[in-house]
Amino acid sequence: MPVIDELTRELSRLPGIGPKTALRLIHHLMKGSADDTRRLSRAIRDLADRIRRCRRCGNFSEGELCDVCSNPRRDPTTVCVVEEAYEVGAIERTGRFGGLYHVLGGRLSPLDGIGPEKLNVAALVSRIEEDEVGEVIVATNASVEGEATAVYIENLARPLGPRVTRLARGIPIGSDLEYVDGTTLAEALVGRREM
Amino acid sequence: MPVIDELTRELSRLPGIGPKTALRLIHHLMKGSADDTRRLSRAIRDLADRIRRCRRCGNFSEGELCDVCSNPRRDPTTVCVVEEAYEVGAIERTGRFGGLYHVLGGRLSPLDGIGPEKLNVAALVSRIEEDEVGEVIVATNASVEGEATAVYIENLARPLGPRVTRLARGIPIGSDLEYVDGTTLAEALVGRREM
Repeated sequence: MPVIDELTRELSRLPGIGPKTALRLIHHLMKGSADDTRRLSRAIRDLADRIRRCRRCGNFSEGELCDVCSNPRRDPTTVCVVEEAYEVGAIERTGRFGGLYHVLGGRLSPLDGIGPEKLNVAALVSRIEEDEVGEVIVATNASVEGEATAVYIENLARPLGPRVTRLARGIPIGSDLEYVDGTTLAEALVGRREM
Repeated sequence: MPVIDELTRELSRLPGIGPKTALRLIHHLMKGSADDTRRLSRAIRDLADRIRRCRRCGNFSEGELCDVCSNPRRDPTTVCVVEEAYEVGAIERTGRFGGLYHVLGGRLSPLDGIGPEKLNVAALVSRIEEDEVGEVIVATNASVEGEATAVYIENLARPLGPRVTRLARGIPIGSDLEYVDGTTLAEALVGRREM
């Protein structure tokens, strides 16, 4: 059936979804109400029609500037650099950050052909200079590529004047020392703080 | 952002997709073109608007009768019983079945409160009687619930006259005996055939 085949093909383009998972999703939708399925369709359409990238930071946005950048109570002189826009939410939910973001749109990964020219770094340099940024917080992931990207950002930002900091590494809250990997434990020791 | 929140919620309703996976899917869609995202939205909408259940067998269908039931070259006296409509495709792709299907819409599962009255069995009885069905092939899954459902269908169908058969159990093509589980190996021994 063309309709099923087409939807299977479209769903299979998504990461982590193959033809079999796609058929299971279709089956799930068919078991539910047509209205639920239409609501999903509309929500996806709204993403295409109404969401773009914030002109300043690269975050998801409904307008020219995202909710964070257009909030006058946020401090534009502190910029938190993340790899992807969907990571902004994780930091926002902590409620502990009052500055602005800068979304790189990826991480350095020479094996995948991703060099600095593929990342949103030129705009970061302009922002540091124009907004007189006092602190750049590097919040890339704690992976090999994330670390390489962090070092690159540090080398880029530091000569322009701001403090360059990064998220603390250490024991995740709630974990047993016994189960924490050695590298994390070593970082936690080196980064120990006065009680 | 309401658009992102709404889409996260809608995607999270799908089986196997939680809020974090939903955000990754959204991120993937945002990296692609808006046209691709609109195509996905349209394909989902078409599912709601154009696909229903075949009046005769319960398969996915664009019309009153599905492609299989409306094909005059298919043999209506042989009926293959499957649990779900998405399993019809797997049997069709073998190209070795020329009869019609009957979709139960589930399997017996007392623990989940799914008894015979929740399955599409009354229609199966009518079909066996009206279409003078000569063979019912039970193609439920080889799970505990699938087996229980198979026995139920057998007890229902046999008194009405037709042969009741089921898919052979045995060694999957391409597997090493060493890695086949004991139950399958036992079934393969019991069901051995002349060479």
